[in-house]
Amino acid sequence: MTTLRDARIRHLVVFTLRHEEGSPGAEAFLAALRSLATIDGVEDFEVVRQVGLKNDYEFAVTMDFAGRAAYDAYNGHPIHVAFVSEHWNADVTDFMEIDLAGLRYDGNRR
Amino acid sequence: MTTLRDARIRHLVVFTLRHEEGSPGAEAFLAALRSLATIDGVEDFEVVRQVGLKNDYEFAVTMDFAGRAAYDAYNGHPIHVAFVSEHWNADVTDFMEIDLAGLRYDGNRR
Repeated sequence: MTTLRDARIRHLVVFTLRHEEGSPGAEAFLAALRSLATIDGVEDFEVVRQVGLKNDYEFAVTMDFAGRAAYDAYNGHPIHVAFVSEHWNADVTDFMEIDLAGLRYDGNRR
Repeated sequence: MTTLRDARIRHLVVFTLRHEEGSPGAEAFLAALRSLATIDGVEDFEVVRQVGLKNDYEFAVTMDFAGRAAYDAYNGHPIHVAFVSEHWNADVTDFMEIDLAGLRYDGNRR
């Protein structure tokens, strides 16, 4: 795994879908989710399963950004905004966002 | 970031300490936490900060295992068991565990 040094940020969202795993609805959602990997500045993008028994989330998406500017650009990118409006808000029933950075991360002096 | 394929599992724990960040108590805890990296089978070990504003956790520890057997061995390892008893239970006020695996993960047919 790439070390989280300098301003690097790892964005992780664990989530649950209203569709059953393996169903056409779930597959369509995951395909739409993967379109976010095409946004400039998104690195190490991966859609995975949450397999731990100590929480109820079913899936996760993880991606890295070189710094806060890339993260902000992603958040405001039309592809991301459209995905949230058309897919995320319609299909996700529960989620939690986690952002990780190195212990010396300074928030890009934000 | 290493792709989560085959039986590979990423174990992530986000947590909050009863010590203030940067205090001697926090530093001592994080040093003890790092001792877990010496356990056989623990890969890509990293202690990081949780910097997202959408949850209240302050830190995270992340590590990868090649598969379920390595993960189980870690859980039962004397170094891990002693760490939980002597440091984790004493110093951590809140935490959440997340385990990630590839979409085709089969739980090592556990």
